[in-house]
Amino acid sequence: MTTRPGGRSARVRAAVLDATYAELVERGYLGLTVENVAARAGVHKTTVYRRWATIDLLIADALDSSRDTGWPAPDTGSVEGDLIAIADEIVTVFADPARRAVPEAVVTAALHSGRARQAKRDFYAARHDQAAAVVRRAVQRDELPPGTDAVELIRLTCAPLYYRIFITGEPVDHATAERSARAALAAARAGLLRTWDATGPVSSPSRTAVDRLR
Amino acid sequence: MTTRPGGRSARVRAAVLDATYAELVERGYLGLTVENVAARAGVHKTTVYRRWATIDLLIADALDSSRDTGWPAPDTGSVEGDLIAIADEIVTVFADPARRAVPEAVVTAALHSGRARQAKRDFYAARHDQAAAVVRRAVQRDELPPGTDAVELIRLTCAPLYYRIFITGEPVDHATAERSARAALAAARAGLLRTWDATGPVSSPSRTAVDRLR
Repeated sequence: MTTRPGGRSARVRAAVLDATYAELVERGYLGLTVENVAARAGVHKTTVYRRWATIDLLIADALDSSRDTGWPAPDTGSVEGDLIAIADEIVTVFADPARRAVPEAVVTAALHSGRARQAKRDFYAARHDQAAAVVRRAVQRDELPPGTDAVELIRLTCAPLYYRIFITGEPVDHATAERSARAALAAARAGLLRTWDATGPVSSPSRTAVDRLR
Repeated sequence: MTTRPGGRSARVRAAVLDATYAELVERGYLGLTVENVAARAGVHKTTVYRRWATIDLLIADALDSSRDTGWPAPDTGSVEGDLIAIADEIVTVFADPARRAVPEAVVTAALHSGRARQAKRDFYAARHDQAAAVVRRAVQRDELPPGTDAVELIRLTCAPLYYRIFITGEPVDHATAERSARAALAAARAGLLRTWDATGPVSSPSRTAVDRLR
């Protein structure tokens, strides 16, 4: 079997991973089978089994393949606008039954499979890093205190939405997105997300100069 | 079959739901079977199937039965201490592989079963309401602005921990718990979580008097 980029192996992988996404959207995690993925991809099921023994491995590889695709960070002119846009995108994805099927399957797969867990971790690390660009830019233009932990501000913006969606089962909408972003921003502006201050690194991100002056 | 409280039916239910928890701890969601639950509870499997046709229904009923058990809200003397204690408890639960098996199974079951989804929603609503006592007390003693949405402050305290545990797969520890609680508190103190102000109810929790004066 050739392994050169663009060769048969790469085409098979692309077809199988596309089919994995399409099957997830149509049937969800519990309805996903290697047989159906193979049929949809137009390849023999042994071809799929040889490379992806379980559906969790299919999901992990599909996630890996989408991780490094471009994700354009918003650029609204203010960090508040950017964070609200990031939060709004989560609301939009989960309002669409087709699009929400993928993250739901990923969360389920990661609870059962170490390989899927690693793929999920890598995926969110990559997305956090991409989204953190809006925070780094805001620090540069003095909208936020120097040393603000950019990824932590992204986490705090997204967390209340995922918490409602996956944990409490409460609805999310634009008002929820706006409130999450503003709450996260209030913490950053209060200096609670700084990883260092004028005297050097702080031992814990919650220990700011203000805390130590008390 | 008798249905009087404390009768055979109640004893069977208690035994089956206890067995469900024990099986979840030992085998996790994918290892849970009605047969194993019946064997552990010492009842015939048709007795279990008649009342709980699927493992998702077992999980939902187990969650319902634990929902109204007492959960003592912390009382450390300050709202910051109380919120950190609530966040720390999440860290403690998920540091223990036995204890984390239950919420992990609940999240998985809720993705597949409407009945489990409802049980999860009811469970977290009850816990939020119990935990919100620490916020209501803080408002009474003027630690927080009047009209602070008590449940929303609890959500913002817990969300960053659940986000790391279930979504990004990042570690949680005492420092994470402390930072989550303090960030949530900063938003509340900035008045971002108020549901009403001196002029009456605000249309959205993110619209405070400050916003409307702009």
